[in-house]
Amino acid sequence: MRKSKSSLIRNVVGIALSLTLSLLVIAQQPGSQPTYTYSPELIAQLRQLQEAALSSDYAYKQVAHLCNNIGPRLSGSPQAEHSVKYVAEELKRLGLEVRLEPVMVPHWVRGEETGALVEYTGQAPGTSQKVVLTALGGSVATPAEGLTAEVIVADSFDHLNSMGRDAVEGKIVLFNARFDREMAAQGFALNAYGQAVAYRGGGASAAAGLGAVASLVRSVGGAEYRLPHTGSMIYAPNVPKIPAAAVAAEDADLIAHLTAQGKVRMRLTLTPQTLPDVLSHNVIADLKGSEHPEQVVIVSGHLDSWDLGTGALDDAAGVAAAMETARLIKQLGLRPKRTIRVIAWMNEENGLRGGITYAQNHAGDIGNHIAAIESDLGAGHPLGFNAHVKPEALAMLQPAADVLRAIGAGIVRPATTPVGADISPLENAGVPGFSPLQDVRTYFDYHHTAADTLDKIVPRELAENAAVMAVLAYAIAGLPEPLPR
Amino acid sequence: MRKSKSSLIRNVVGIALSLTLSLLVIAQQPGSQPTYTYSPELIAQLRQLQEAALSSDYAYKQVAHLCNNIGPRLSGSPQAEHSVKYVAEELKRLGLEVRLEPVMVPHWVRGEETGALVEYTGQAPGTSQKVVLTALGGSVATPAEGLTAEVIVADSFDHLNSMGRDAVEGKIVLFNARFDREMAAQGFALNAYGQAVAYRGGGASAAAGLGAVASLVRSVGGAEYRLPHTGSMIYAPNVPKIPAAAVAAEDADLIAHLTAQGKVRMRLTLTPQTLPDVLSHNVIADLKGSEHPEQVVIVSGHLDSWDLGTGALDDAAGVAAAMETARLIKQLGLRPKRTIRVIAWMNEENGLRGGITYAQNHAGDIGNHIAAIESDLGAGHPLGFNAHVKPEALAMLQPAADVLRAIGAGIVRPATTPVGADISPLENAGVPGFSPLQDVRTYFDYHHTAADTLDKIVPRELAENAAVMAVLAYAIAGLPEPLPR
Repeated sequence: MRKSKSSLIRNVVGIALSLTLSLLVIAQQPGSQPTYTYSPELIAQLRQLQEAALSSDYAYKQVAHLCNNIGPRLSGSPQAEHSVKYVAEELKRLGLEVRLEPVMVPHWVRGEETGALVEYTGQAPGTSQKVVLTALGGSVATPAEGLTAEVIVADSFDHLNSMGRDAVEGKIVLFNARFDREMAAQGFALNAYGQAVAYRGGGASAAAGLGAVASLVRSVGGAEYRLPHTGSMIYAPNVPKIPAAAVAAEDADLIAHLTAQGKVRMRLTLTPQTLPDVLSHNVIADLKGSEHPEQVVIVSGHLDSWDLGTGALDDAAGVAAAMETARLIKQLGLRPKRTIRVIAWMNEENGLRGGITYAQNHAGDIGNHIAAIESDLGAGHPLGFNAHVKPEALAMLQPAADVLRAIGAGIVRPATTPVGADISPLENAGVPGFSPLQDVRTYFDYHHTAADTLDKIVPRELAENAAVMAVLAYAIAGLPEPLPR
Repeated sequence: MRKSKSSLIRNVVGIALSLTLSLLVIAQQPGSQPTYTYSPELIAQLRQLQEAALSSDYAYKQVAHLCNNIGPRLSGSPQAEHSVKYVAEELKRLGLEVRLEPVMVPHWVRGEETGALVEYTGQAPGTSQKVVLTALGGSVATPAEGLTAEVIVADSFDHLNSMGRDAVEGKIVLFNARFDREMAAQGFALNAYGQAVAYRGGGASAAAGLGAVASLVRSVGGAEYRLPHTGSMIYAPNVPKIPAAAVAAEDADLIAHLTAQGKVRMRLTLTPQTLPDVLSHNVIADLKGSEHPEQVVIVSGHLDSWDLGTGALDDAAGVAAAMETARLIKQLGLRPKRTIRVIAWMNEENGLRGGITYAQNHAGDIGNHIAAIESDLGAGHPLGFNAHVKPEALAMLQPAADVLRAIGAGIVRPATTPVGADISPLENAGVPGFSPLQDVRTYFDYHHTAADTLDKIVPRELAENAAVMAVLAYAIAGLPEPLPR
């Protein structure tokens, strides 16, 4: 049941690859879908919503408040809890029925984190070379005074395994798989991420299985600015837990360069703590449907973030787009036929507890969940939306896509696997799932780094994403019958 | 006499602006210079040198050793001293006559550096917002436990002065002048740098003059990756010395955003130390001239670097190009008519003591310094070279430029102010000065940051720069008569 975003993203690796072809198919076969029409009134309302979204700075202001006034929101932190209160109050202020759904979340706290090469070829006497690194979420600590060991470099799991236990035992292993920047620049950022992230998630246990004392991974991301990318990692059962960190791309290059010349020893200090789980909450806010209040269309993003930056792209943007959806509907005096449910998920980053808890709590009511939308890949220009639905549902979405085409967001990309991490438990239970289909070419330059900050949000593009979410949600909420499932 | 690179760069702010026009002029008036010819033998030798430079990885390997094996080389550090020894030995190995010229250099050592906003609108209880910052070179320290004060934001010196002493006294001042990224992307990076760097150099004393307790400057550079840019600052006489740091662009935005909403208080801890001056050295290595051994053409870069990165672009690249120049001439068995003198300058970054000392020591021999070449703006593709010479000297350089045109480096850009920091004392004493005319569009993204590392060097482009230096130096060394001055 538990699904990390990493594995989710691996599942959708095919998305980008198929996108270009999809575009051609859609462009050439406009009439290939059976025709389905919305009422003129609904179309007019969708256009109203879209226009209002584009002229609003509400979503941007929400991201600004979450990032600048509240700050990083790692599960279990005071900021995460403060953001729960803030979003709940704001949604109440908008006139929604708000409740907090209790979720027990992990409480991992970053500590000191330093690395230095203390022995290598050509070293100036009495000096060391700094290694820029950051602990991976969930990592155990080194001794407080650090550990010192030889570093060896593996390009892949196969490469590591080929070295054998004798070569690995007692060493620090650096997994030096490169994030393919060219692939990302060409629009296939998810593929580049999927290729590299396996080492972040599973590297430590693979290394520990051969006796390593610590595990480093080349940062999974595209930036070249000495910027380490954190993210979650998972310890395999029955293998010793060893400390795990991501090093900046430059530092991975440095270590690889020096180990090719001779023996390299490194001192690594990581002092994170895993504290007892704490009580946190999903924020759930309903804008009740006029005809089928029991039927729900979820609009959502996740409220927690990594702790290095302020979580603007990941994922204040998604939360803000969902809040904006409800606000716009209210502001325009529209009454959705089904309930629009805003959810600000807790703990997407290191546990997915919010999404899992919600699906468990609402297992008996899954049939009334008509659709779930989540935005969690930044705030880049949306080209359309991903639709994890039965093929026969696609025609029912086409009129909404036709409205969105006016802002360059008219593509419906069919998906066969979940399209959002927090909604994946619902999707796996049969709920149609949706997400904006965004330009993610630069997303992984900032993802999980200190540089995921407000300035990375382009206000116009965030508003476009809010428009996609609002139009899609309101359209689905207004369909004469639910989407087939 | 003392000239910081900052002021030098302000002097050459006109370079980029005039470049486009110069290009047009040169393109349209190929015959506007009086004709000057080199012997066919000299032309053939220049072509040989150029070709050999492009097929060599020697310069790259030197940058790699200086950055990866030795590391950051701030004046007074063990690494700086180790690099002096390394370069001297390497140049001896190449067969040059090497000597070390003593230079007393400043010894400033970075300490702890942290910043946090501890009071601001909307703050989650018990939390603070991290501010990414780095001390400016030469800064005094805060108390060891830090200082805490309200932060105010000034967009300019005029803006600060308009606030008056009552508003500034007891505060931390943030100078929030933006580096103009668009200007830099269009090729005018030096202008963008020149606009912003005044606050780095002079901000602290301007703020202290109105009673401020510390001074922050928005980082002078183009990157968007939470990356602070260090660099030197200078205290004015008769004004209290207050701690000075650069904050990342994102953090400047954060502070500006929060101060616009209400009072913001910040805790700032900087613990750098200024230790007594220490003995260091310029490395000077001669390849003796066959006809006029007493006449000297200098090829150079500076060996010291800032301490955050490893000084690949700034300026291992320049040192490596100079070393490569001598090596190529030796390897090809060429005998320059005049002496080619490789100099690896010490202390460009925070004192220029190497350049100043050399000019003082050689004041009686300035007339025998036929030319001085320095590369100190990275290793981007060279479009040609800057020539700080009398107009009547330009024709004598044209045949060398014609050779370089084959690698896209054929532009001679006349300059009327010094074109290299370390050579500026010589230039000011009448020595013709030269530097590669480089593509610097991304230079200030990395300049003085932790990200100035080996991977930023494009091997081919570094080789092109070595080619420019080698061709130019050998041509000038081989002229029948010295350049007019």
